[in-house]
Amino acid sequence: MSYFAFKNHNIYYDLQGIGKPILILNGIMMSTKSWEPFLNSFTASNSLLRVDFIDQGASDKAKIEYTQDTQADLLSALLDYLKISKINVVGISYGGEVALHFAIKYKQKVDRLLLFNTTAKTSDWLKDIGEGWIITAKTRDPRAYYFQTIPVIYSPHFYHSRIDWMKNREKVLAPVFSNPVFLDAMERLTRSAETHDVRDSLQYIEAPTLIVTADEDYLTPMPEQKYLHQNIKHSFLVQLPQVGHASMYEVPFVFASLVLGFINNPDVTYAI
Amino acid sequence: MSYFAFKNHNIYYDLQGIGKPILILNGIMMSTKSWEPFLNSFTASNSLLRVDFIDQGASDKAKIEYTQDTQADLLSALLDYLKISKINVVGISYGGEVALHFAIKYKQKVDRLLLFNTTAKTSDWLKDIGEGWIITAKTRDPRAYYFQTIPVIYSPHFYHSRIDWMKNREKVLAPVFSNPVFLDAMERLTRSAETHDVRDSLQYIEAPTLIVTADEDYLTPMPEQKYLHQNIKHSFLVQLPQVGHASMYEVPFVFASLVLGFINNPDVTYAI
Amino acid sequence: MSYFAFKNHNIYYDLQGIGKPILILNGIMMSTKSWEPFLNSFTASNSLLRVDFIDQGASDKAKIEYTQDTQADLLSALLDYLKISKINVVGISYGGEVALHFAIKYKQKVDRLLLFNTTAKTSDWLKDIGEGWIITAKTRDPRAYYFQTIPVIYSPHFYHSRIDWMKNREKVLAPVFSNPVFLDAMERLTRSAETHDVRDSLQYIEAPTLIVTADEDYLTPMPEQKYLHQNIKHSFLVQLPQVGHASMYEVPFVFASLVLGFINNPDVTYAI
Amino acid sequence: MSYFAFKNHNIYYDLQGIGKPILILNGIMMSTKSWEPFLNSFTASNSLLRVDFIDQGASDKAKIEYTQDTQADLLSALLDYLKISKINVVGISYGGEVALHFAIKYKQKVDRLLLFNTTAKTSDWLKDIGEGWIITAKTRDPRAYYFQTIPVIYSPHFYHSRIDWMKNREKVLAPVFSNPVFLDAMERLTRSAETHDVRDSLQYIEAPTLIVTADEDYLTPMPEQKYLHQNIKHSFLVQLPQVGHASMYEVPFVFASLVLGFINNPDVTYAI
Repeated sequence: MSYFAFKNHNIYYDLQGIGKPILILNGIMMSTKSWEPFLNSFTASNSLLRVDFIDQGASDKAKIEYTQDTQADLLSALLDYLKISKINVVGISYGGEVALHFAIKYKQKVDRLLLFNTTAKTSDWLKDIGEGWIITAKTRDPRAYYFQTIPVIYSPHFYHSRIDWMKNREKVLAPVFSNPVFLDAMERLTRSAETHDVRDSLQYIEAPTLIVTADEDYLTPMPEQKYLHQNIKHSFLVQLPQVGHASMYEVPFVFASLVLGFINNPDVTYAI
Repeated sequence: MSYFAFKNHNIYYDLQGIGKPILILNGIMMSTKSWEPFLNSFTASNSLLRVDFIDQGASDKAKIEYTQDTQADLLSALLDYLKISKINVVGISYGGEVALHFAIKYKQKVDRLLLFNTTAKTSDWLKDIGEGWIITAKTRDPRAYYFQTIPVIYSPHFYHSRIDWMKNREKVLAPVFSNPVFLDAMERLTRSAETHDVRDSLQYIEAPTLIVTADEDYLTPMPEQKYLHQNIKHSFLVQLPQVGHASMYEVPFVFASLVLGFINNPDVTYAI
Repeated sequence: MSYFAFKNHNIYYDLQGIGKPILILNGIMMSTKSWEPFLNSFTASNSLLRVDFIDQGASDKAKIEYTQDTQADLLSALLDYLKISKINVVGISYGGEVALHFAIKYKQKVDRLLLFNTTAKTSDWLKDIGEGWIITAKTRDPRAYYFQTIPVIYSPHFYHSRIDWMKNREKVLAPVFSNPVFLDAMERLTRSAETHDVRDSLQYIEAPTLIVTADEDYLTPMPEQKYLHQNIKHSFLVQLPQVGHASMYEVPFVFASLVLGFINNPDVTYAI
Repeated sequence: MSYFAFKNHNIYYDLQGIGKPILILNGIMMSTKSWEPFLNSFTASNSLLRVDFIDQGASDKAKIEYTQDTQADLLSALLDYLKISKINVVGISYGGEVALHFAIKYKQKVDRLLLFNTTAKTSDWLKDIGEGWIITAKTRDPRAYYFQTIPVIYSPHFYHSRIDWMKNREKVLAPVFSNPVFLDAMERLTRSAETHDVRDSLQYIEAPTLIVTADEDYLTPMPEQKYLHQNIKHSFLVQLPQVGHASMYEVPFVFASLVLGFINNPDVTYAI
């Protein structure tokens, strides 16, 4: 159980393995625990650093107002604390957005960057979807929150091919979505992303960047990742067919293979 | 103001114009009024029949249990009442699904069939989204219902290019979504679609059928319309880029042109 | 048999029907005859003007150097000759490109504009494909020319579903592709498109414009039509799934319906 | 310089590096030399086996009639010769098709399988394109062969962004395409793929399989790889936007990363 202090918060992190280091950043509802199924893959030849953001998992609930930029500062402080000067950063959704802030503000600390289901800006459309999540969270009705958030996170393809898993998910999440402490944290996390807009700063990202888009992602749809690809210099775009916003749950083997291949590949340029 | 009686309900309809007849069927939140901006197009060379389904617009609220099959029976009774033996049927979303039931059960009454943003089955995924709508309707909170339903109905592309219109929409819909009579009707309409599944009967559709899919439709996504196209014999598929579930609002000129072209074109087969 | 004179060439045209007038422009290998299967559709409620460009069909072979801009001048002269002040212009491929030149140079003569499988510029890639066609034409080998040009014109989907028709096409085209006069005309037509580049003038097009893209079009692929859509003000984009470059042959009913709907629809703007 | 004998042919191969072994299989116009830019990536943590098929590179020209099945037998003999019992197989285009034959006939020798720009069958459409290549090869005109084959191999996107490289390619390939020995080998290689059809045997592939499709691939277009994905049990599909048939040349870093990630990832199943 490892913690470090950031602005008066206990922040939970976990560091394992040896090799090229990977920092992996959670989506909004996730925590370090969500990556347990990936430990074998990510620690076989790499060191893996996981962290719970403020208001996530085993880290403290927020004692301050914060945005995704604050979470990026947290990452920088964590790396300093661990004396890691440079790392490969992988983020999904909320975590991908924090990764963008981090890669812009602390560019010298980023080796390679991987962005799954990420957007350059919380658009008015996405903000209004988030508004719906917040209003429903306040009802304290776990079923309302489940049906508001979960179906749009998964692709219809995955939902139907894994319907038993989804139905079980409803049971697993019922106590979580009944917990007012969790729901209030979700509200703050959602609000912390509302001002996200790094469009004008994407040009400063120098790291080789893999952008992964999913064609049944109905929260951060494909045009968002195409925009990132067009505006980040050394970027590469890969598309996952029949996959939704929760790409790491839907195609974990592909997700992990993309991460390992892009980070462990010694070459970036090819004399072609 | 025209009404006819169906199973003890007053059903509102409107018939205008002369020429090849068009029956146009509302999406779930729509009513005959929603088609006002299209009157000029649809009555220039055609006769247009609009109708409010049970629980829609100026028709009676439900006095019976019903499904989309009941609404198809209503259409058949209306045509008999108006002594129209055969008609071109256009439906969007809920209306497209009723159109499918009608084209299967009353095939001799269908000339040509046009399906916008339509699915052959209410999938588990869509059912769960509908469940969210129902739960939120019960909260009687108009803002909750607005943010639950409206953003996913429109494409992000339209939402952003018409953000003022969307913001006004919120005001326009506030009194509607505050009305418990409307919200209860919406619940019944949503439930009436839950058992929708005509996959095994699509083979019986003989009418030339135009299927229109929209690539930012996140309620009845493109694979649904591809399925319809693969399973309806004389069908044609057209895709609308950067358009969402509310295709008739988002690209009304294209919507109306597709309807007029497909219905008024004298030829179906070409000696090519 | 109607002819008019343009720069010392006899130009063949055909005018039929009454109603809103349609000018339809041939693709490079086509002629007025190619539209015979569409006569019923296009003359039912419209007047239809067809024309063979210089080096096409029953018009004279070229006596001058020309580009697609020359062909646009030809169209303007023809309309003047027929005392038609304004017309709806439909073009496919080469014809769509001439339509663009025409709509820019003679904008007051264009009512509505429809562009199928059209590009704003003959790109280096397309130019090199054309270069292959020209080199092969010089071999005077009809089979060489057939296999060079025909497979890439049709979608794999159409090719496989209509393989008998394609195999017959090989026989039908053998004498045509054996004719040195035809092959030399094809070379000149191909060269006349090499300098095509109206990217900087698209902003001057005022006509409501329907742009039709086909997702198995491997000669003027979809990004070309998306570019047109982004740069023509009052434009609308429709996509044809599983259709190739020869959209008018592959889905004639859809092709004709799009033309009729877009042209005969009285409304362009909707109060939505 | 390593050779081994197969059916009276000297077959050139090259084995380097240590680690999980990778067998990489050439596209039709390629040779072992084409992979030089990838050596650093593929030998950093892996052993890499390259081979020239009959009629390719430094291997003998054909002394027998052969199909892609023969080339698969060659691979099996090579592995036996090198005492390699099981290997990860990567193929692109022609090489991917041989990989399919190999994975079906010698399934116990395949660890993981990666197929780039590959098809389950040489369709009538693709056969006719190949027929064009063969006819043009017989003209012995290097420019004819260049413009027949090269533009369709590359995506328009790559062609335009790397136009200088493409123009140089024309010069580099001129002597190659002038060589009758090369052109005759190309004809035999093309013919050896004409009967390719493993659709009914895909069900026997047990290896975890990564299928990579490219959306500007106009020789083996995306529906081909979707078919493979639907019919190979443990398969995963990844799409490369704005990439053509020559994916390894167009996005070498992505190509290599996909190979390394998929092969070196220890896990195939995740407890999710």
